[in-house]
Amino acid sequence: MNVVVIGGVAAGPKAASRIVRLRQDAVVTIIEKGEFLSYAGCGLPYYISGLVKEQKELMTTPAGSIRDAAFFRNVKKVNVLNHSEAIRIDRQKHEVLVRDESGNELLLKYDKLVLATGAEPVCPAIPGADLKGIYQLKGVEDAEGIKGVLEERKARDVIIVGGGLIGVEVAEALTGTGCRVTIVELQKQILTMMDPEMAHLVTRHFESKGVKVRCQTKVNRFIADDSGHVAKVQTSAGDLAADLVVMSIGVRPKVNLARDAGLDIGVTGAIRVNNQMQTSDPDIYAAGDCAEKLDIITGKPSYVPLGSTANKEGRVAANALCGHKDSMTGILGSAICKVFDYTVSRTGLSETEARRAGYEIETVISPAPDKPHFIPDAKLIFIKLVAEKKTRRLLGVQVVGLGDAARRTDIVTVALTAGMSVDQLAGLDLTYAPPYSPAMDNIIATANILRNKLDGIMEGMSVWDLMAMKEKNQDMILLDVRSADEVAAGMLPGAVHVPLGQLRNRLGELNRDNLIVCYCKISLRGYEAAIILKQAGFKQVKVLDGGLLMWSQLN
Amino acid sequence: MNVVVIGGVAAGPKAASRIVRLRQDAVVTIIEKGEFLSYAGCGLPYYISGLVKEQKELMTTPAGSIRDAAFFRNVKKVNVLNHSEAIRIDRQKHEVLVRDESGNELLLKYDKLVLATGAEPVCPAIPGADLKGIYQLKGVEDAEGIKGVLEERKARDVIIVGGGLIGVEVAEALTGTGCRVTIVELQKQILTMMDPEMAHLVTRHFESKGVKVRCQTKVNRFIADDSGHVAKVQTSAGDLAADLVVMSIGVRPKVNLARDAGLDIGVTGAIRVNNQMQTSDPDIYAAGDCAEKLDIITGKPSYVPLGSTANKEGRVAANALCGHKDSMTGILGSAICKVFDYTVSRTGLSETEARRAGYEIETVISPAPDKPHFIPDAKLIFIKLVAEKKTRRLLGVQVVGLGDAARRTDIVTVALTAGMSVDQLAGLDLTYAPPYSPAMDNIIATANILRNKLDGIMEGMSVWDLMAMKEKNQDMILLDVRSADEVAAGMLPGAVHVPLGQLRNRLGELNRDNLIVCYCKISLRGYEAAIILKQAGFKQVKVLDGGLLMWSQLN
Repeated sequence: MNVVVIGGVAAGPKAASRIVRLRQDAVVTIIEKGEFLSYAGCGLPYYISGLVKEQKELMTTPAGSIRDAAFFRNVKKVNVLNHSEAIRIDRQKHEVLVRDESGNELLLKYDKLVLATGAEPVCPAIPGADLKGIYQLKGVEDAEGIKGVLEERKARDVIIVGGGLIGVEVAEALTGTGCRVTIVELQKQILTMMDPEMAHLVTRHFESKGVKVRCQTKVNRFIADDSGHVAKVQTSAGDLAADLVVMSIGVRPKVNLARDAGLDIGVTGAIRVNNQMQTSDPDIYAAGDCAEKLDIITGKPSYVPLGSTANKEGRVAANALCGHKDSMTGILGSAICKVFDYTVSRTGLSETEARRAGYEIETVISPAPDKPHFIPDAKLIFIKLVAEKKTRRLLGVQVVGLGDAARRTDIVTVALTAGMSVDQLAGLDLTYAPPYSPAMDNIIATANILRNKLDGIMEGMSVWDLMAMKEKNQDMILLDVRSADEVAAGMLPGAVHVPLGQLRNRLGELNRDNLIVCYCKISLRGYEAAIILKQAGFKQVKVLDGGLLMWSQLN
Repeated sequence: MNVVVIGGVAAGPKAASRIVRLRQDAVVTIIEKGEFLSYAGCGLPYYISGLVKEQKELMTTPAGSIRDAAFFRNVKKVNVLNHSEAIRIDRQKHEVLVRDESGNELLLKYDKLVLATGAEPVCPAIPGADLKGIYQLKGVEDAEGIKGVLEERKARDVIIVGGGLIGVEVAEALTGTGCRVTIVELQKQILTMMDPEMAHLVTRHFESKGVKVRCQTKVNRFIADDSGHVAKVQTSAGDLAADLVVMSIGVRPKVNLARDAGLDIGVTGAIRVNNQMQTSDPDIYAAGDCAEKLDIITGKPSYVPLGSTANKEGRVAANALCGHKDSMTGILGSAICKVFDYTVSRTGLSETEARRAGYEIETVISPAPDKPHFIPDAKLIFIKLVAEKKTRRLLGVQVVGLGDAARRTDIVTVALTAGMSVDQLAGLDLTYAPPYSPAMDNIIATANILRNKLDGIMEGMSVWDLMAMKEKNQDMILLDVRSADEVAAGMLPGAVHVPLGQLRNRLGELNRDNLIVCYCKISLRGYEAAIILKQAGFKQVKVLDGGLLMWSQLN
């Protein structure tokens, strides 16, 4: 069996190695443009920051072997044509036309073909985008270029164009090297995978570390100095000095070869595949960043290019191609990134995405320390949970903060995959000991608040809705139920203070015809206050979602 | 509605507060022996170690309010009879007889009763167990006693009797205060919730921190000095000096009241309840450490007392009692503890438990760094995964090591709850970025190895089985496929060295009639070597589970 694999970064080598292991008779050849294979592109920001000391570390196995053609030939029994490009696929003849760097051409026969052509950066046509000092982060050459500018030109002012995952990671990396970094983003917020208020937490954190974030800002032009090196970025919000620019607007699947060969391209622009990674041609598979994915929640096509998914897809393609039963479950858009000491993570649908997809939903935001308050290194995390109203099915979660966000997000990743309800999430027998979590883990406590909302026991109001109401001078009582000690440091503007313990005896002080919005530090006591008011016959009672902690982040 | 709650530590206050929130007409009274409520008993080891500075921190809310009777009355509208004990339940009359510290008695009427009487330490009748300087860890008095002995007597030699979760936590705490600590355990291993080889990793770690672990050792007697204070512990393995002894043999549910009232007691010795926490008397609920639990995997009664479960059960009991739909899913025996810089965690069934329950199983042990090798703070974790052979259903996981074990364990907690197979585990769209995990997360890589085993692609051999074979001088070839550089630091005794990259060309050097056991550092290359040998027609080929890393821990 002749197998040709086009692309040697993640899904390609994974599929190739697995095919050889499953089928002794397989002759497998990888076609790769570059020198190395299984190259850890996700590590580039950490090479730029200096955390990863040598380029080499990104292209070795954990045991230290360089993943070059010889390694693949000797260890994996996989042939490699590197420095070579696949030019055309002839599906009738089952042939791939390959051209090496010297222009030599070669026709490779295949019985089965695996497309792992990856993704490429989106490059909008901005005048001056080809100036020196402007980089994308496609590969190690860009990382070397960026490091060169930092060193040779003592670059200080850096503009990151695009505040997605890569932009955010590079912004952190370059701040760490001593640069003054500004992220310029066309949308209303950075990290559009997050809801606006959760993205706002990240923006605030960036600002606290000296990184400027300019949203709703369009880059019009790059201006050079006398040497042809970028010096300034003209934006819709004025000119910004720039010694270095990193373009990180996003990526799109590389599908030229597939499209030219007449394979079906999906609505997302990626190659359409079934759950065995098979394209519209049964002898051709596609895996990794060039292939379309299935969203587990919506059941619709989706496109989220990630190394983790590429590895799984490569394995599934190999299994399917060898007649070994396997299939891809689909994805949840799970993502995580480090923003200095913050972790920013999400899985499933955000509120924005869920509403856009037509779900009727309920949400909750819960800020709380990730360990019992008596453990000194307890750290704050903000959890936002989204569920469908009617079915109580979980739809997604976002977790941001200094504490252990990854664990809480991945718990929900599994729960979403299993189609769990918010009630099932709340009942999970998660591990517990004080050095790791509160007795009621944050994710369970958050689920319980959401259950209270779904049951009509509690009604929430978001901080931004509250601010909008106050702006319109709408009548309401903002009720602070914290202790006198806590209130001494200040309350929300216009709030009335009644400590929770005194509330039952001081109900007469509150106007029953008014909307009352209760809050405390995180709104747990706010919730108890709302119950007391409702039981006393107050009709319009709400709780401020996320309490004072959330309010202070959004102001 | 009159509700009486017996017990004020975890499940009791949770149930009481929730009942008042759900039912305006509820009059709820908690009966509690001690002074404080909602006391964080799990924090005691950290109070002993000094991490928690003040006793008070364990009995306050996160906002700093002391959880005393006045707090519950004013804030929660819950009556509290503290310093009081429930003596007898009269189910016909719906009455509880209560006695306070002065001997005054009171009859409390109830419509619904919640038993949250908790658990008590098991105290075997060892001569001298009542000497000064011998403590359990029931409550804050014990913690104060221990701290007193440390300070006043400058205690240095500490004997911990019982190597369960509490024993292990206290051993760590006291080592931190400068004591010489010895754990004495009757069983063959500490932490019987773990399989022997996984518990052995923990023993090794204890020893590396200077803690002595004496298994299969029976305590016969405690011997006093002239002042009546413990000075020596007589054991089956000789005498041990002791300035301080902590007894942590285990706990059992406190069920006297329930048994005397004629309520059904389950096979585990805890109060039998349905999934709404209702006892055999429909007007009496039980929750927390006194109540029996249901094991999700086996479907059988189980008993694992934990604060996390108690909180959930208290809420379910309250909901059920108020006619609000809810139920307990059951438990998985999920547990976690910190042993210095190791995390030790598990959920579901261990191999031992699974075999005892009659499952035909396959297992895998995978040691690997918890982040990509190029991230400097990647830390080793050992994962042991257990699945049922026929159905491929996950049965349990154990994770031990310096890295992020909690996340991997809780991922499996959710997967087990959902009844996932090892294939579904491998397909999860877990969050991925280099600062958090490898592109193929450890738990997914481990699941894939287990899939290979279940598919017959790979056959494993445990380190202990290998050692037993070598002891019997059984014929085999131990094949080390690491690089020459790695091997320079030493190989397993009697091993043959052929680097993986040369194996295909050097097959002639290996005897085809022999059993060949392949290994490398973690057995990933060992697996690839086994595939090469099998494809070349070798019939008996196995892979050493966990490779050299596991071997070095078990020798």
